[in-house]
Amino acid sequence: MNEKLIGSCIFGQSGGPTAVINASAYGVIKAALEAEEITKVYGAAHGIMGVLEDKLYVMDEEDPAELKLLLHTPSSELGSCRYKIADPEEDDTDYKRILEIFKKYNVRYFFYNGGNDSMDTCNKISRYMESVGYECRVMGVPKTIDNDLYGTDHCPGFASAAKYIATSCMEINKDARVYESGMITIVEIMGRHAGWLTASAALATEFGSGPDLIYLPECDFEMDKFLEDVDKLYKANGKVLVAVSEGIHYADGSFVSEAKTSATDGFGHAQLGGTASHLAEVVKNHTGAKVRGIELSLLQRCGAHLASATDINEAFGAGQEAVRQAVSGVSGQMVAFKRETVDGKYVCKMELLPLSAVANYEKKVPMEWINAEHNGLKHELIDYVLPLIQGEPELPLENSLPRYARLKKVLAK
Amino acid sequence: MNEKLIGSCIFGQSGGPTAVINASAYGVIKAALEAEEITKVYGAAHGIMGVLEDKLYVMDEEDPAELKLLLHTPSSELGSCRYKIADPEEDDTDYKRILEIFKKYNVRYFFYNGGNDSMDTCNKISRYMESVGYECRVMGVPKTIDNDLYGTDHCPGFASAAKYIATSCMEINKDARVYESGMITIVEIMGRHAGWLTASAALATEFGSGPDLIYLPECDFEMDKFLEDVDKLYKANGKVLVAVSEGIHYADGSFVSEAKTSATDGFGHAQLGGTASHLAEVVKNHTGAKVRGIELSLLQRCGAHLASATDINEAFGAGQEAVRQAVSGVSGQMVAFKRETVDGKYVCKMELLPLSAVANYEKKVPMEWINAEHNGLKHELIDYVLPLIQGEPELPLENSLPRYARLKKVLAK
Repeated sequence: MNEKLIGSCIFGQSGGPTAVINASAYGVIKAALEAEEITKVYGAAHGIMGVLEDKLYVMDEEDPAELKLLLHTPSSELGSCRYKIADPEEDDTDYKRILEIFKKYNVRYFFYNGGNDSMDTCNKISRYMESVGYECRVMGVPKTIDNDLYGTDHCPGFASAAKYIATSCMEINKDARVYESGMITIVEIMGRHAGWLTASAALATEFGSGPDLIYLPECDFEMDKFLEDVDKLYKANGKVLVAVSEGIHYADGSFVSEAKTSATDGFGHAQLGGTASHLAEVVKNHTGAKVRGIELSLLQRCGAHLASATDINEAFGAGQEAVRQAVSGVSGQMVAFKRETVDGKYVCKMELLPLSAVANYEKKVPMEWINAEHNGLKHELIDYVLPLIQGEPELPLENSLPRYARLKKVLAK
Repeated sequence: MNEKLIGSCIFGQSGGPTAVINASAYGVIKAALEAEEITKVYGAAHGIMGVLEDKLYVMDEEDPAELKLLLHTPSSELGSCRYKIADPEEDDTDYKRILEIFKKYNVRYFFYNGGNDSMDTCNKISRYMESVGYECRVMGVPKTIDNDLYGTDHCPGFASAAKYIATSCMEINKDARVYESGMITIVEIMGRHAGWLTASAALATEFGSGPDLIYLPECDFEMDKFLEDVDKLYKANGKVLVAVSEGIHYADGSFVSEAKTSATDGFGHAQLGGTASHLAEVVKNHTGAKVRGIELSLLQRCGAHLASATDINEAFGAGQEAVRQAVSGVSGQMVAFKRETVDGKYVCKMELLPLSAVANYEKKVPMEWINAEHNGLKHELIDYVLPLIQGEPELPLENSLPRYARLKKVLAK
């Protein structure tokens, strides 16, 4: 496993963007540019699509100072995709094409940064290259605001989104309590199946100004119980702040937001407006109170100005580690995080997990961390998230506005 | 006018909250606590309502360190109101009560922080006290994210919201361009009648990553022209980012968001979901593209974590100045800002405006600053807003989350 493998590398970004996915990109690109085994560093345009379409940017051509700005540039700077690759046993068309491109550019290293589906893509490419005897080391770099990747303590991207959510909930809570008159505010937070992000709103409450009620997709949602919860607090305090996951669902599995399409409530416009606006309508009819629905929408995943320095460092480190491991002979693995406590302090160690063990599993908020009423979180959740959001990066600014990386994106020929 | 007037003061906050209204509060409270003429400093709970209800907090009882945190605490910490006071000539009930409270606490100074309506309240109280011969100096401190106060170059609160909007639009723009597939994103920004905030989204475009199209309430909205604009850019680039003011309206004056209540489009639910979601629906039907509507909602006015240091300093300064002027004998005036350029640099000078000249007028974005197509801004707007958003305050944090002021709010008896 220790022989020197000389060749170029491709790096790709996949799935939904985050505030720090480009920090991982910088980790991979910087380490790859520095590795003597790696002759050329390509960035794939729109993930695996860029490989299939022979659209690769030459990272060696970029100004190092601009590359460094990737640490604070949100979203996927090389472009992303949601392309689901076939099983190589069923249809190997894509794999033949990937092999062709790999051969064309003498690609011996492939780094892919993404969530569950991306690790699956990564795993399939790894297996295929092995099966056809093409030597190429394939490494996964984790990423997802949803924090639902199996086998790693947490995922790069999650903490920055959590920090954005907690801070925004603190601010909203201040704003929503300003008048004497009653007010119910419902904040919708991302997470279809795992409630990590919505749960992080509990940090705002912990530090004095946050949601009174929090509903996660880990528990079946009961509308009657929800209305009862809200009503009770509204009658007691006149102000209620509720955080709900976009993925809350009834016991039969149907999403609460889907109710909008049913004939009974007469909306007929399911696609636009989500869970918060639907619940706001129901709560308004039930309580007669003034109700406001707020969707944090894309803002929560691209809020680089509120990124956690810990998250940026770890995302960068994961990218670097993937390159280090690959040049030392490792393949078919994802870089994962292991939490340790040293002298009472949080420490994040890196380890490796086989791609096959990660792909297509989902990690959810443990039921033991959710309160008995299913409308709040216990202290275990705070203890888990708090170390991850620590630290404020020194943001590159120009005219007091973010200065993002400006890459040349010179296409490889 | 230079005689020493000894007595207590009341300070109140009114209208919609901002990221820096508490900075003005701190300016007033600090200066009043320091002024030897002012014997006691009261903060009215929920603005003029707190005076009418005899609900006054004793600011002298507060910990100075906590008061200082008001500089970075969003929303109106003492509570706000939207109470419209009657004309004293028509109904003087409220004024008699205010006089009673003023006499009870020997109030000789009244400072009121708010927008148009609040300056009107301030003006009426000033005139009434004069008419009954009760000596009390009344001063207005400007505040409004809408920036529509007449006679002042700009208003405290506007710049921080503008900075939040510009930064968020830069981030959204990065996120919304990440996939190869087409995408149209519509961002809704506050401002019913004046488009200052929506116009500020142009800063994002100026610095490389912002809206392609911007629509203000200063121009009549034409749906056909709008769809044509969007369509053209969508066909050319595949991605379009649009910023619209919540107050855009047709030539007949009806708000675009109101269309949702009309029988023809069959929504029937006007109250929830606004302009962005309505336009997203129309654009989707027209183009067949994937369209996302995003409402910046309360977030834009309470985003203290992105506040402009210039705005904080000016808000604080305006509060201080109101006290300084009042103790020196001035009454019936609002502190206003005058922009000067010294050595090529922006300088904000303070001046005084009679309350009667400010109340109930609205300042809009000049038509000459809007492009001929009515879908973007000219450089004059950038030059106007840019100096106002400069500077990042050192935010007080605890566990990497905002540490807001925690006041005791001891009630006066």
